[in-house]
Amino acid sequence: MQLKLKILDIQENQDIVFINFNDALKERIDPGEKVVIKKSDYFFSSSAVLTNDLVKIGYIGISSEKAKRLNSKDNDTLDVYPDGNIELSHILKRKIEGKILTKEEIVKLVGGIITGNIDSVLISSFLTSTQILGTSTKEVEHLTRAMAETGTMIKFEKSPVMDVHSIGGVPGNKTALLTVPIVASSGLTIPKTSSRAITSPAGTADVVEVLSPVDFGADRLKEIVNSTGGCLAWSGVLNLTPADDKIVEVERKLLIDPEPIILASVLSKKYAMGADFLLIDIPMGDGAKVTNWESARKLASNFTELGSALGIHVEVAITYGGQPIGNAVGPALEAREALLALQGKLTGSLTEKAIGLSGILLELGKKAEVGKGKDLAREILESGKALEKFKEIIKAQGGNPNIKPEEIPLGKYKENISSDDSGYITKIDNSLIVKVAKILGTPFDKGSGLILNYKVGDRVEKNDVIVELYAESEERLLLAKKFLDYNKIFQTEGMILKRFPGLKVI
Amino acid sequence: MQLKLKILDIQENQDIVFINFNDALKERIDPGEKVVIKKSDYFFSSSAVLTNDLVKIGYIGISSEKAKRLNSKDNDTLDVYPDGNIELSHILKRKIEGKILTKEEIVKLVGGIITGNIDSVLISSFLTSTQILGTSTKEVEHLTRAMAETGTMIKFEKSPVMDVHSIGGVPGNKTALLTVPIVASSGLTIPKTSSRAITSPAGTADVVEVLSPVDFGADRLKEIVNSTGGCLAWSGVLNLTPADDKIVEVERKLLIDPEPIILASVLSKKYAMGADFLLIDIPMGDGAKVTNWESARKLASNFTELGSALGIHVEVAITYGGQPIGNAVGPALEAREALLALQGKLTGSLTEKAIGLSGILLELGKKAEVGKGKDLAREILESGKALEKFKEIIKAQGGNPNIKPEEIPLGKYKENISSDDSGYITKIDNSLIVKVAKILGTPFDKGSGLILNYKVGDRVEKNDVIVELYAESEERLLLAKKFLDYNKIFQTEGMILKRFPGLKVI
Repeated sequence: MQLKLKILDIQENQDIVFINFNDALKERIDPGEKVVIKKSDYFFSSSAVLTNDLVKIGYIGISSEKAKRLNSKDNDTLDVYPDGNIELSHILKRKIEGKILTKEEIVKLVGGIITGNIDSVLISSFLTSTQILGTSTKEVEHLTRAMAETGTMIKFEKSPVMDVHSIGGVPGNKTALLTVPIVASSGLTIPKTSSRAITSPAGTADVVEVLSPVDFGADRLKEIVNSTGGCLAWSGVLNLTPADDKIVEVERKLLIDPEPIILASVLSKKYAMGADFLLIDIPMGDGAKVTNWESARKLASNFTELGSALGIHVEVAITYGGQPIGNAVGPALEAREALLALQGKLTGSLTEKAIGLSGILLELGKKAEVGKGKDLAREILESGKALEKFKEIIKAQGGNPNIKPEEIPLGKYKENISSDDSGYITKIDNSLIVKVAKILGTPFDKGSGLILNYKVGDRVEKNDVIVELYAESEERLLLAKKFLDYNKIFQTEGMILKRFPGLKVI
Repeated sequence: MQLKLKILDIQENQDIVFINFNDALKERIDPGEKVVIKKSDYFFSSSAVLTNDLVKIGYIGISSEKAKRLNSKDNDTLDVYPDGNIELSHILKRKIEGKILTKEEIVKLVGGIITGNIDSVLISSFLTSTQILGTSTKEVEHLTRAMAETGTMIKFEKSPVMDVHSIGGVPGNKTALLTVPIVASSGLTIPKTSSRAITSPAGTADVVEVLSPVDFGADRLKEIVNSTGGCLAWSGVLNLTPADDKIVEVERKLLIDPEPIILASVLSKKYAMGADFLLIDIPMGDGAKVTNWESARKLASNFTELGSALGIHVEVAITYGGQPIGNAVGPALEAREALLALQGKLTGSLTEKAIGLSGILLELGKKAEVGKGKDLAREILESGKALEKFKEIIKAQGGNPNIKPEEIPLGKYKENISSDDSGYITKIDNSLIVKVAKILGTPFDKGSGLILNYKVGDRVEKNDVIVELYAESEERLLLAKKFLDYNKIFQTEGMILKRFPGLKVI
C-alpha cells in the first residue's frame, strides 16, 4: 500500500514504525510484524507498531533518521508492504515442520524468488528441507505451475504439441537433432527447446549453435515453428522459468539437486511451452545420473504422475546410458555426426536411439499405430525427409541449410590416442570422457572434443587408434593427452574364460 | 600450500588450473577438485587439472587472464588450498543424507564459518537439516568443542568454577545480580558472563551496565574474578564463540533455532570459560520458551548429557516463567529492583528464585550439605554479605559501589496505567510486556521500562494503578500508552463460582 510519511520524534536505535490500525487491518499487518518501507531505490524493513491516533489513516510514522535514509520528508508517499522474507520464513518453517505447503504459499515462495525479495539463505533452507523430506504430489504440481506462470507462456497454433527431453548424464546425446526433424516431417508440431551445457561437454543448444542461431524471443520462435513444424532452440532467451535459474544457483553451492525440483524444473518449461505429449528420456547405466532400474522406474512414475496433474501426457523411455551415444563428443563433432546420421551415412547407437524415441512420439501423436512408430521413423529417416526437414529448420533459424558434414570446422589441433593393450572393451568411463572434453575446451571451444573409435564389446588390438582428440589450442591438446596418460577411458579385458582346477584326488 | 605461478597459453572461459601430481597428492587434491588461488586480497576458485610434466613440482599453471586478475606474473608466489565451500558442501550433503558427521568434519564446518570461507547458503542448509534431522550426542559434543576452541578459552586460578545460565524467555529475569554475589560470598568462583538483549527488554549485561562497565578482555576479566571471586560481564568482547554470531545471523533470517544449536551455543561459552559446575535455569510457562513439563524435561536431560560429555557437571532448575520475575522490566528499573533485593528490602519472586538457584550452586560447590543450600543462600543474602560482595564486584568492574537504589536514573517521563476492571488477576501476558517495553525504548533507553504493581493471584480494584510506565521521550510514552488502550497485559476475573441449576423435576 502507499502511505504518507509523518516524521515522529523517536530515536533511531530501534526498528519500529507506526501504522494506523485501519491500514494495518486492510493489509493484514499484525502488531510487531516486519514491513518493508520503500521509496524508489531506498528501502528498509522494520517492526510495525499499530496505533489509532498517533498516525492517521493513510500515514506511516517513522523517525527522522529513517526519513533521511529514504531521502524523504513529511507527506512524501512511501510504499509499505509486509516483509516477504519474514512471511517466507514462516512458510519455510511450516515446511521444515513437515507440513504440506498450500498453493498460495508456494506461489508466494516462487514470487519471492523471482522478485529477488527472498534471501538465498531461505532458498537454501527450502532446497535442504525438500531434499530431506520430499514433497507431496500437490506441492510439486503447485511448484511447477508457479514456476511456469511466472515466466513466458507460449501457445502454438497447431495441436497436439509434442516434445522430447533427456534428463542427461550421458555424453554425446545429440538425438534431438534427429528426433525433431523426424517427428516434424510427419506433420506434428515439436517446438524443442534445450539448455546449453552446464556440466556436460555439449548441451543440445551448443551443438545446434554450430549450424544456426539458437536464441529467439517468443514471437520469432512461433514463426519458426509455424512455418516448419519444429525448432531446435535455446530455452535461455525465452525466460520460460526465471525462478529456476535462481534455484540452480543455490543448488550448485549446496551440490544437491532434489528430485522434486528436477521434476518441477523440467516440466515447468514444457508446461510453459504448451506441450500436450512429452517423451522423457532417462539414460540409465554406470556413470549416468540414474544407475539402476529401481531408481529409473521411480523417477519415471513421478514424471508421468506430475505430467498428468498438469494435463501433459508424459511417457518415459529408459535408455542405455552406460557409454556415450554415438561416437562424437563436443559441439562441432556432434553436429557433424548428427548430419551424417541424417544423411543415412551412419548406423549404430545414435541412429537407433533417435529412431526409437521418434517412434514413440509418432505413436503418441497418432501418426503411427501402436507398435509401428519405429518403422515409420526409420522410413522417414531413410527417405531423406528428415534431412530435408532439418535443413528447413536450420534455414528458418537463420543458419546455412546446405552445409556439408565435412565443412563443419573442427579444432585444428588433433592427436590420436592408441590402445596400449589388446582385448575386448568391457567399460567406457563417461566421467573421464567429460573431463577430457572439458580440458580440450568444450563447450566453449566449439571445435574441440573427441571421437571414440570403439564402443563396449568391440575388439581392440594394441596400438589401434582408440580415441581422436580435437582442440583449438595446442596447449589444451597437450594437457588432455597428458591427462590420458594417467586416466584410462577404456577398460579392456582378454576374453579368456576362467579355469577352475578340479579337485586333486590322491 | 604455496606454489609459483606459471602462465599457460589457455583461454580464460574455463575454470581450470594445473597442478603437479606430487603437489596435489601432498595436499590431497583430487582431479577436478576446486581449489582457491589467492594472492593478498585477490582470489578465485577453479577446478584442478593434475599433470606430471606440464607444470613442475612447486608450480601452478593458470591462464594469463587469471594471472592478471591476481595482479601477478610468472614465478610469483601464490597461496593454493582446497576450496572449503566445495568440501563443506560434501560434508553437508552427508548430513542431509542422514549420516553422522565426524569430529574432523564438524571442525572443518566451524572453521569455515569462522574464516568466512563458508557461504551463508551452506550455514542455512546445515541449520535446516539439523532442525529436521536433529544430531547425535557425539555431533553436538564435537560442535560445542569446536565452537569453544575456535574462540577465547579462559582458565581461572581457583577451582571449582561455578556458573549459572538462564535460557531466557521471561521478562525481568535479573536473578544473576543476586546469585553471583551470594555464591561468590561463600568463597566459590563464579565468573558469570551474559549477553545483551536480543529480543528481550533487557539482558543481564544491559542491567549490570546501568551500574558499571561490563565489557572486558580476558586478562582484565581474570583480574576481576581473582580479586572478588565473581563478575557480571558481557560475553561479547571476550569473543568466546565467534562461530555462534554467524550462526545466529542466519537463524534470524530463517526464524528457526534448532535445539542442538541452542545446546552447543550455551555450553560452548561455558566450556570456554572453564566451568566445572553449571546450573541451567529453564523458565517454563505460558509465553516462555518452554511451555510444558515434557519439553522442559527433554531439554534438561539434553543439557546434562552434553555437559557430562564435556566434563561439566550440569544441573537444571525448571522455574516458573508464566509471568515476569519480580516487578520491574527494563535496564535501570531492574538494576534498582536487584539492589533493593540485595538490601533485603524486597521479598517475592525475585528474591525467592535467586535464593533457590544460589542454594543449588552452594550445594554443587560443596559449601552446603544437600538440602541446606537454600538456607545458606538466604542467610548470606539477609546478612548483607551478598550486598557487600556485589559492591566489591561493581567496584572491581569500574562502577560506583555506593550508588543507592533511588539514585539510579529512570526515564523522566512517567505515566500510570489504571485497571478498568476489578477482580483477581488470572494471567499476565509476557509477550505484551516485551512489546510495551520495546515501544518505551528498552534496551537502548536504559531508563525506560515498566513496573508491574500486581502479579497473578493478586486482587485488583477498578482504577488501581496496575502498571507504571517509564520513558526517556514523551513520544514513546504516549505510544506505549496508546498501545495499552488496545492490548491488555493483565487478565482479571471475578471469582464468582459457577452455579449449575439443578434438574427440574416435574
